[in-house]
Parts: sequence; structure tokens; C-alpha cells
Amino acid sequence: MTAPVAMAELWRGGMLESTHLGHAVICGADGGIEAAWGDPQAVIFPRSSCKMLQALPLMESGAGADLRDDQLALACASHQGAALHTGKVARWLSDLGLSESDLRCGAHEPSDREERERLIRAGESPCQLHNNCSGKHAGFVMMNRHIGGDADYVDPAHPLQGAIRTAFEEVTEETSPGFGIDGCSAPNFATSVHGLARAMARFATAREDGDARDRAAHRLTRAMARHPDLVAGEGRACTELMRAMEGRVTIKTGAEAVFIAILPEQKKGIALKITDGGTRGAEAAICALLVRLGALDPDHPATLKRLNAVQKNWRGIETGILRAAPGFA
Amino acid sequence: MTAPVAMAELWRGGMLESTHLGHAVICGADGGIEAAWGDPQAVIFPRSSCKMLQALPLMESGAGADLRDDQLALACASHQGAALHTGKVARWLSDLGLSESDLRCGAHEPSDREERERLIRAGESPCQLHNNCSGKHAGFVMMNRHIGGDADYVDPAHPLQGAIRTAFEEVTEETSPGFGIDGCSAPNFATSVHGLARAMARFATAREDGDARDRAAHRLTRAMARHPDLVAGEGRACTELMRAMEGRVTIKTGAEAVFIAILPEQKKGIALKITDGGTRGAEAAICALLVRLGALDPDHPATLKRLNAVQKNWRGIETGILRAAPGFA
Repeated sequence: MTAPVAMAELWRGGMLESTHLGHAVICGADGGIEAAWGDPQAVIFPRSSCKMLQALPLMESGAGADLRDDQLALACASHQGAALHTGKVARWLSDLGLSESDLRCGAHEPSDREERERLIRAGESPCQLHNNCSGKHAGFVMMNRHIGGDADYVDPAHPLQGAIRTAFEEVTEETSPGFGIDGCSAPNFATSVHGLARAMARFATAREDGDARDRAAHRLTRAMARHPDLVAGEGRACTELMRAMEGRVTIKTGAEAVFIAILPEQKKGIALKITDGGTRGAEAAICALLVRLGALDPDHPATLKRLNAVQKNWRGIETGILRAAPGFA
Repeated sequence: MTAPVAMAELWRGGMLESTHLGHAVICGADGGIEAAWGDPQAVIFPRSSCKMLQALPLMESGAGADLRDDQLALACASHQGAALHTGKVARWLSDLGLSESDLRCGAHEPSDREERERLIRAGESPCQLHNNCSGKHAGFVMMNRHIGGDADYVDPAHPLQGAIRTAFEEVTEETSPGFGIDGCSAPNFATSVHGLARAMARFATAREDGDARDRAAHRLTRAMARHPDLVAGEGRACTELMRAMEGRVTIKTGAEAVFIAILPEQKKGIALKITDGGTRGAEAAICALLVRLGALDPDHPATLKRLNAVQKNWRGIETGILRAAPGFA
């Protein structure tokens, strides 16, 4: 097992203050490794970075054939519960003859500031629509209605989750060593960093006129790139960086510092994991890899917020910088 | 240079998901190393973990001779801006004939939920009293009035900061290699993990009837232990763990995953830094070291929230556990 390597560093007063280590793989069109850092075989939980894999059964089965791009982007999103997101998910459920109470993701405070403060002022509690995974779960309940499964669609033994596992293992080209329960209660299947990057290369090469899997992967990838505001939200890395890349690249973060990228023009897939789970490290590292591949402008404000990012304190005084570790990307 | 060692691990679904590495030192009464993990000579910024060092000139000069324990606890605090904290700091400033506008810490949202939501409902903005460092800065302006320094007391060239550097270097027994600017705009002097632990051993052995430094260190240590609610706030690690140890141990966290402990009964000092800056890792690691020394009950709810801490998701389902790495502490 190869140790993780330094990917991002926080500097303060001309001295190194903190370091993020990780594993990363860039896969080419054939799923082979084009570049790697750390251990490509390190087993990770992709967490929310694999939501487009979890949406494959919905699309391949035909259950989601009539869904619009905005709905597909939400199915793959970790949105921040803004009114834009909750409104669209609520309408999607309503169109299915279902409601918020049919979801099994649980409720949490929205990370969208405006909506969070609205709830506080109104004395309201957040509901399951605010859960960052509510779009994924709308896709889950839609698929579940299609297959006639019972209501507890997040049970690892439920046929929906079995279909997801099958698709997940096929596109990662690995037998998953197991699963953990995610924040939204769905099982999250483990794979290697290489496996996750291989899956993203599969998405990057998916043909619009190919087989059912091709068409599903192509539509999901494109829908995310077309709706960066739905995949995360204002101020967030996925949204700002996809906008900076003007629809050419699809990216997605996952909890505990996972990040993936799908590059259809270059027919490449990227996966990385910062082993300490620190989000800022994963954001800096994915920026560095996208800059390396020429996909992201290193001087774009969205990049400079996360890579070579000047740190300022409460009075706006510069205190340091977050940058790529020497020798990484 | 010795590499940092694994101190805390997050497990999910029976698999290791994330790991926190770090450096730690336990010093005995003479400042020598009794136990160490990683590199004792690793240079770190103590950040807020050294606020009791920054308060030494205030006490040793006699400027703070009449301060009560609650004020001394606030001088060493990273409080969460609850009404309890802001009210006491405001009265302290008022007693000095000063006000919030004399502070140079900047304003940020309080992390205390009740106060944060009150501001939102009232349509008010946070002020400098809400800054987690406002108590430290109240001590700074009090000392500054005593020495007749100019208003910009956070300038690294200001005599107050010079006095702090001298005290800092004396108790760490190291020449600081430099400083960074902290979140609150004050300079934060760098030292080794051993230096920081040595300073804490100095505090642990400080005699109530000793010299000026002894008396200052003793009073600050005791004031923090007597007012755990002022040092941080409800729900926070410093507050809950000091309560669990019933005043026998003084602990303090610092940004970027630093933690110190002062154990007067055992005449020991502890310092640790998780190299990725992840707070949960530092909290788990300090718990492990305090349990090792018999100072903290491993089964206390405040411990189990941070070490062998069962992770639950939005529906209350167990998803994993945060625990000490094998072989650490």
C-alpha cells in the first residue's frame, strides 16, 4: 500500500501550518491510469461524488425517460436547500403523486444562507426537501415506483439498492468490498480511487447515441454541466468551478473530501480523496488537477478562491495562502 | 524530521474512511518529554491554544491585579459569542471607560446558536464583542492602557506584542522562529510542539505563592478551570471536557487543530497538533491523551462525543465511529 501524498498546504506567516494528504487517479478513455498520486488501489467511500452512478438505474430502466435536465442535475446534486432546489424537488414529487414524507433522507438545516435565515425568522423547522440529497431521493422514489418496491427504498437489501450496486460495480469494474450507510441513509458502496476514476472515464466517453448505459451516462453528465446552480448552489465549489469551465467539465464533491471530474472533450475521468476528510484540501486538489489538464483557468476567481487562495481574517487582513503541495499536479 | 503519526480514525461500514495524523508531547514538571508521538520539534502555530501565555504580561505587570476569575477565563477564551460572553466583555470594557470600537479583533457571527438566531430575527449584524477572541482583546486593551501604548495594539511592533513575545519565548524556552497573523489580527508566535507542551508544564507547576510569573500562571490556569462555560460555550469541547474533569485540568483548543492541557495535580503539560487542521481529530486526540493519564473518564458522555464517538446521520441511524488510531495513546 502506497502512502497518501501531500496535495494541499496552508501557509501562514511564511511557515507551513497544515497539510492535506491524499490519493488521486486520472483515467483515460480505456479506464487505464494516465497519472496517479498516492495509492490508486486505496479503498474509499465515494459518498456524494457518485450520485450520477446511483442515478443510472433510473435512466437505464426507462423510468426517468421523461425527466428534464434540471431534474437530472438535482438527482446528482448535493444542493444547499435554497428555495430554487426545494421548490423543484417538491414539484417533482408532486408530479409523481408523492410528497416530502415519502423521502427517507432525513431533514437538516439548509446550507443556503437566505433559506436558513428565512426559516429562523419564520420559526419553521427544516424538512426533508432541505436535505442536500433530496433530489437524489426524488430519483430514488421515482425508480422505486417503477419497480413497485416497498417504501423503505434505502434498505441495502431493497431491489433499488441492488440495482445501484450492480451498476456501480459494472462502471467501476470492481466488486465493491462493502458499503457504509451515508448521511442520507442510503448505502454508499466502497471502491478504489482507480475504480471511481474509471467510472468517471466511462461517463466521459459515453455516447449520446450509444446503448442504454451510454445514453444514461451522457445525459446525466450533460445535465450536471448545464445546471451548475442545481448541483450545489451559490458560492459552492461544484457550482462555481463548473461555471468557470463553461459546461465543458462535470465535477462533483463528496463528504470526507472526495472529488470527481468527468472531462468528455478529453475523454478522461478523475477521482481523488483527501485522507483526512478535509473539504478545502479536496477543493484545492481538484483545482490543481483540472488546471494541470488545461480544463480550468488558474487565474479564474473561482479557482483562486480554492487554489493559491489568499486567506483573510475578520478585518480583511491577509494571513496566509492555501496552495498545492510542491510536486503535486 | 519525524513524520506525524495516525491519531484518530473515522470508520464507516466496518472500513476506515478518514485518518488524522499529528504530533503530540507530554511534558513533566521539569519540561522534559515524558511521552511523544510524531515529531516533538515540529514547528506549529499554537493559535488560540496559547491565550493564557498572551495574558501573562497583563497579570505580571499588575495591570490585571483586580480582575475577577470570570474575566481571566474570558481573557483566555475562544468563546462562542453567547449573551453570557458578550455581556461580560462589554461590562469589562465599560469599566475601563472603553467600548467595542476600541477592539481590533473584527466582527464575526457568533457560533452560539441562540445569539446567532436572535441577531437574524432582530435584523442585527454581529459586532466585535461576538468575536471569539473579544475577551483576549479586552485584556489587551486593559494592558495597553496600563503601558500607554497607541491604539493599534495588534501591530507586531507594538510594545504589548513585544511583551507577549518575551513571555512566550520564556515559557516555551525557545526563540520563536516567527509569527503569523491570527484570525483576530494579533500576531501568533510559532514554537515547537515540545515548546508549547513545556509552557503548559510551566503553568501546571506554577505556585500560588511563587514569583509574579508563578502567580499569574496559577491564577489563569485556575480561572479557566473554574469557568469552563466562559472558555468556550455550551456544547463545545473545552467546556464539556473541563466540566467532565471537574476543575482538575485546564484545556484549550486552537484553530487548525491544536490542543493543550495543563494538569496541575500531575504537574504535566500536553500539546498536540493534527497536521491537517481538522478539529475533530484534535478533540479525539486530546481525549485519548487525557484518558491515558487517568484525568478523563473514557465513558463520560463528553468523552464519548469525541472519542469512540458513534456517528449518526440525519435520521439517527448509526453510520460509523470516530476513534483513536491503533497504537496512539
